Amino acid sequence: MPDHFRLLHQDTGCRARTGRITTPHGEIQTPIFMPVGTSASVKAMRPENLKDAGAQIILSNTYHLYLRPGHRLVEQMGGLHKFMAWDRPILTDSGGFQVYSLTELRKISEEGVKFRSHIDGSMHLLTPELSIKIQESLGADIIMCFDECPPAEADREYVERSLAMTTRWAQRCKDAHSRSDQLLFGIVQGGRFAELRQRSLQELQEIGFDGYALGGLSVGETKPVMHEVMDACSDLLPPDHPRYIMGIGTPEDLVEAVWRGYDMFDCVMPTRNARNGMLFTSQGRLNIKRKQYEDDQGPIDPTCDCYVCRTYSRSYLRHLFRSGEILSSMLNTHHNIAWYLNLMARMREAITQDRFEAFRKEFYHQQQSETENHKEE
Amino acid sequence: MPDHFRLLHQDTGCRARTGRITTPHGEIQTPIFMPVGTSASVKAMRPENLKDAGAQIILSNTYHLYLRPGHRLVEQMGGLHKFMAWDRPILTDSGGFQVYSLTELRKISEEGVKFRSHIDGSMHLLTPELSIKIQESLGADIIMCFDECPPAEADREYVERSLAMTTRWAQRCKDAHSRSDQLLFGIVQGGRFAELRQRSLQELQEIGFDGYALGGLSVGETKPVMHEVMDACSDLLPPDHPRYIMGIGTPEDLVEAVWRGYDMFDCVMPTRNARNGMLFTSQGRLNIKRKQYEDDQGPIDPTCDCYVCRTYSRSYLRHLFRSGEILSSMLNTHHNIAWYLNLMARMREAITQDRFEAFRKEFYHQQQSETENHKEE
Repeated sequence: MPDHFRLLHQDTGCRARTGRITTPHGEIQTPIFMPVGTSASVKAMRPENLKDAGAQIILSNTYHLYLRPGHRLVEQMGGLHKFMAWDRPILTDSGGFQVYSLTELRKISEEGVKFRSHIDGSMHLLTPELSIKIQESLGADIIMCFDECPPAEADREYVERSLAMTTRWAQRCKDAHSRSDQLLFGIVQGGRFAELRQRSLQELQEIGFDGYALGGLSVGETKPVMHEVMDACSDLLPPDHPRYIMGIGTPEDLVEAVWRGYDMFDCVMPTRNARNGMLFTSQGRLNIKRKQYEDDQGPIDPTCDCYVCRTYSRSYLRHLFRSGEILSSMLNTHHNIAWYLNLMARMREAITQDRFEAFRKEFYHQQQSETENHKEE
Repeated sequence: MPDHFRLLHQDTGCRARTGRITTPHGEIQTPIFMPVGTSASVKAMRPENLKDAGAQIILSNTYHLYLRPGHRLVEQMGGLHKFMAWDRPILTDSGGFQVYSLTELRKISEEGVKFRSHIDGSMHLLTPELSIKIQESLGADIIMCFDECPPAEADREYVERSLAMTTRWAQRCKDAHSRSDQLLFGIVQGGRFAELRQRSLQELQEIGFDGYALGGLSVGETKPVMHEVMDACSDLLPPDHPRYIMGIGTPEDLVEAVWRGYDMFDCVMPTRNARNGMLFTSQGRLNIKRKQYEDDQGPIDPTCDCYVCRTYSRSYLRHLFRSGEILSSMLNTHHNIAWYLNLMARMREAITQDRFEAFRKEFYHQQQSETENHKEE
């Protein structure tokens, strides 16, 4: 049993579980959601706002920080924690996903991926070794292996070859990793093919990592396929290691993943949607732009006790959004992050009380009223 | 002696003075700078950030709030303080200046000003009575008379006719004003003509207001003209009433105005410049974009103890600016407001110790090193 993860409680009615990850910057209670701080900032949030919203760990992007301001500069400034004044845990991704999703020109070879920067058009070669080097310079508590992330529509033959290379890259990442104060997670690929996912997972486990992540989900596949992949892996994953599904998701995705025994998640949805005026509530999603909120003195969500819901009316938040005020992004982001993190806290509590199955049913009941709510609107 | 203003100390060496304004939302120590919250938000700042930066009072714009979200809505939501969750004093301007500076189509008559909204092109007629009605609905602690603000290049004849009408409008404002919990300030016009300024002031005093403001400065006139206008009025202003110069200014403008016995100021400079990466320091202005700050681990201003200077490096702030992060505007704004308010606090302290003249000399010595600094850059 590794000492960085402790399985605290296994729900007696389903695969959902609570746990605790220990890092040099503190402990993380799982299941947990990680707000995304792409360029060394969770957009529109100060570190103390993140803490107030309940953030235990944030994610930052290797691809972005490598290009700007550069990992060497961040290292010279004392590492990512000091640079951005965030003293709790950080996870960095490997840059893999961004290379495939943000750059147009890329050439994949056994050595690594050649790509053109989306910022200044310069050419770069990202390899497993360089990804680890960058992540060591940034100094996150949890770092990720460099992987190939095939498109959702890739055929089985492509995915099979790709995951074999991802396994070889994972070995190279492990060999290259030298910082003992960082946890290194492997990334399971295999696209929509359950059997390939299982093969990938098995190969990664043979190498041995501090945690295991599912990559390449929420890239356009259907929900049944997403759930099938989660199911295909969850029984094979070692119970004494943290399990992370990268890049998901909606509140429903999180509930489904926790129900299947997964522990960690990240997604830009709560932060990006906030800036577009889409807010999460216990009654479903709410678009703050709508005329109906013009003179609404109530909070975003009457059941939410976050700073924003305690302080501001929907009427004011609508005014800020329509006026293009920066404060609109600040307050909307704060609420959405707090709401996501509160959802995770409620899930942890339900698991501890062996009633996650009931929680899930109740949650879907609310989602139904959300759907009705949407119809009304 | 009115009970809303107490002159606390008159510097023995110059006209600078400290005082205290009492309002329903608390006291204001003068001389004071008021951060500008145009559309019911000081851009990129939460109310508690403003308090942390030392804000005692903020200004909000009648013109903007009248057009969006509308003064009746703000009133229905419980007034501006409640709407924006700011429980300290607020001053609203009359809408006069914005009507002249932001709208293209306007027709000035004895009745008022007809103008086209810069938001949706709709036509409006703003009169002294409507301006007061709007400001009563918003519920600020200090409200302003509706005035005509002639352009800097207007000739004497125009300005003379204009100020006569501004006086008649001031009387109409006083007659229309019915809320006893608001202070009503008159606005001295008269352009660059010292004699006309004095006439305007005398006429306003005959009507009688809770405070007196100089309007129409910092609209393109030279510094000597600005100072001449300040001088022309400062000996005629009643010492037992607060004196406000609207829309200034640079740190130098504030020092010059305080030295001449003025008490209150507002300007978008610290907030707008912050969003453009221009930061105020004891060594002069600093452009955070500059390459030289790339690996600068120091704070914006080593002599500043604001939240931003205690927490972040120039290197990080440069990164945020270059990355277009919202946090850049948030942190830069916080620093600039804190720096301005700290400048005011230092001025109050110097006056209390009868050493404002020495303070002013020292300040200009620093400004010289700033100029040299600019040359180097």
